[in-house]
Amino acid sequence: MEKINIGIIGFGNVGAGVVKIIRERGANLSSKIGLHLEIKKICDKDTVSKRNVSVDKSLITKDAHEIIDDPKIDIVVELIGGIHPAREFITQALNKGKNIVTANKALLAVYGRELFALASDRGKNIYFEASVGAGIPIIKSLREGLVANKFNSIYGIVNGTSNFVLSQMSQQNYSFDEALREAKEKGFAEKDPSLDIEGMDSAHKLSILSYLAFGRLVDLSDIFVEGISCVTNADINYARELGFAIKLLAIAKKEKDELELRVHPTLIPEDHLLSSVGGVFNAIYVSSDLAGNLLFYGPGAGQLSAASAVVSDLVDLSHDIKAGLFRPTLKISPDTSIKKLRKIDDIESRYYLRTMTLDKPGVLAKIAGILAKSGISIASVSQKEKGRQEAVPIVMIIHSAKEKDMRTALGTINKLDIIKQKAVAIRIEEL
Amino acid sequence: MEKINIGIIGFGNVGAGVVKIIRERGANLSSKIGLHLEIKKICDKDTVSKRNVSVDKSLITKDAHEIIDDPKIDIVVELIGGIHPAREFITQALNKGKNIVTANKALLAVYGRELFALASDRGKNIYFEASVGAGIPIIKSLREGLVANKFNSIYGIVNGTSNFVLSQMSQQNYSFDEALREAKEKGFAEKDPSLDIEGMDSAHKLSILSYLAFGRLVDLSDIFVEGISCVTNADINYARELGFAIKLLAIAKKEKDELELRVHPTLIPEDHLLSSVGGVFNAIYVSSDLAGNLLFYGPGAGQLSAASAVVSDLVDLSHDIKAGLFRPTLKISPDTSIKKLRKIDDIESRYYLRTMTLDKPGVLAKIAGILAKSGISIASVSQKEKGRQEAVPIVMIIHSAKEKDMRTALGTINKLDIIKQKAVAIRIEEL
Repeated sequence: MEKINIGIIGFGNVGAGVVKIIRERGANLSSKIGLHLEIKKICDKDTVSKRNVSVDKSLITKDAHEIIDDPKIDIVVELIGGIHPAREFITQALNKGKNIVTANKALLAVYGRELFALASDRGKNIYFEASVGAGIPIIKSLREGLVANKFNSIYGIVNGTSNFVLSQMSQQNYSFDEALREAKEKGFAEKDPSLDIEGMDSAHKLSILSYLAFGRLVDLSDIFVEGISCVTNADINYARELGFAIKLLAIAKKEKDELELRVHPTLIPEDHLLSSVGGVFNAIYVSSDLAGNLLFYGPGAGQLSAASAVVSDLVDLSHDIKAGLFRPTLKISPDTSIKKLRKIDDIESRYYLRTMTLDKPGVLAKIAGILAKSGISIASVSQKEKGRQEAVPIVMIIHSAKEKDMRTALGTINKLDIIKQKAVAIRIEEL
Repeated sequence: MEKINIGIIGFGNVGAGVVKIIRERGANLSSKIGLHLEIKKICDKDTVSKRNVSVDKSLITKDAHEIIDDPKIDIVVELIGGIHPAREFITQALNKGKNIVTANKALLAVYGRELFALASDRGKNIYFEASVGAGIPIIKSLREGLVANKFNSIYGIVNGTSNFVLSQMSQQNYSFDEALREAKEKGFAEKDPSLDIEGMDSAHKLSILSYLAFGRLVDLSDIFVEGISCVTNADINYARELGFAIKLLAIAKKEKDELELRVHPTLIPEDHLLSSVGGVFNAIYVSSDLAGNLLFYGPGAGQLSAASAVVSDLVDLSHDIKAGLFRPTLKISPDTSIKKLRKIDDIESRYYLRTMTLDKPGVLAKIAGILAKSGISIASVSQKEKGRQEAVPIVMIIHSAKEKDMRTALGTINKLDIIKQKAVAIRIEEL
């Protein structure tokens, strides 16, 4: 049986999962695909730590060039994460005529344009199913299953850590800090969770999803990013009273001939499927013009889940290599109806607005007056019990308004001496 | 640019959709795949009716053999549905060296074994993404995206008509007949809706899903099938009070070394994602050993949705043809841990049980006594308001029991003179 030689750079959690699957399912995979997947070399700077799969010492190296420079290796799997030296390794491997499998969303978000261009130039492929939603086959679905479709929007819950935190705040009535502490204890959050909590990990994934759906690899700086640390469990409860859940969404949305790209906590209708996505799960809600509105849901992380995606890439690539095919579905064609990216200032949205004010007459009139001055109209208002705190929460739903106007108004409101805390404004999506 | 010649047999709703997409997106598809999809011939016995796409008369024929026997045609798309003459057309086309795309679930469920064997024998492929869940890329996901996985279970809402009826009964408090009438008015149900409502369409799709997940094309007679016409809106309301929704599920489930295959109305926890799948939508909940629990959701029918799946098959097949590839991922490998199919008599399940009894002392004792005699124990009982009817509903949740024992007990209960209507028993799945 023909053999495909694989070199793995990065023998961490996911790397060990890939080795485990190929070890245990090798015969089964071979009988399905008619090819034998052979792990020829594994590179990691840590060659000492125990993994949950045992490999012959002769397979292990500290030197990535034993993989990159080996003419017998067909596919290089990059699983070290981060920008450097992943970028250099992949570049060198492409130049040596290797095909690439990677799970590295940060790298693709930042250097995707450069790497995809080089791959195309070399007639090689980069597969990256594990970069978004781990084992959920969302990349393949967008690129192949929905190949004939144009896309209107993508709404993704693509960061398990943030979703776990928001879910626990909602279900257990935890504060943000309590929920984050639990996430850390359970191994769902890193020691420094800012990449997840502040939305940047979601932005990396959004960049990849919008590349697939709209054919554009945008600069990360063109994605508006706001994390969940401003969300309190009071907001979650008030939102629920109004029929909404709060989720950290990665949004790519076509509005006329412009594309909006943003990551932020979002109020969505409580009866929408995305509202039911709890814990560390991920879900991507795709609006397409032929196949309609689709949801893809599953665990967004995990050793075997991510490794499942890497192995499916390896199988696809092996077919390509056998067939001598530069797989043309990888050619992403840009949606030519999109003329430009819409800046965050120019988006229009409904908003949830909570202010904490002194409990005295005329407060509401003052706030409403400022909003009116910016041309912003209020859909509903409710004043909440003030509880033990000195200030009174006033919760408003704002009719569709321009972000720029909303910010101007918020700036003025926050300067009022009746305002005891910075106002919280959260965008609403109807989906 | 290399050309792939396509012949379409069946110029109905989906056929016209396929032609429309290839017409309108042809250039875009070509730029993605590097091949030109050319519709060379379209066959339908009705050459008169207007379609929502206009085609040159010279393309149209009433004679399928103008497609099957044309040596220039690479792919035959079968969209006439039903068993005959679809089976004969596909057989002849395979024998003439064509690759096949079909949306015909009934045909694959009944003659899949024969047709897949013939295709393999001829080194040709049969693609069938549109046969389950229309544009939801579930076939591709199971076969390619999850290629490394073993599966524990599949729970599918795969019949939009039934799901619409149950949703309207639940949301509008309609009777079964009222909901079905609305489905017909909206074009969601056929004049004779029995194939949908009685579960056979779901069984066809289950047969295909279990082939992909467990490698077995079972006889349809090995799938237990029960439709939704026994479900009343009272049952839906009682189930809701107990925290359950009622859905028509297609279930393929591995229990130790046996496989259960069944279609029936099912109580599932109300907070499970599948419970939120409303209207004509479909969803397939897949439990896999590496990628975990996944959900695929979308419209289960519709001209462009089904056509979207057909076109994605055409693109994949075109790659295969260009590469001279008999696509090995089509080799389904059987799950060898499964030793036999479990008969419905031998399954174990919790049950929802509703009896309509005379309102007099000792009734409950009698029913409970019969259940106890069969070794069946009751988890909860509630007697409902009798409303305007003469009889009193008693609703029970039954602890896990063997189907055979449950049937014996029901037979005895139904013969009691205190029983005013045949008892309704609905299986519960915890998911």
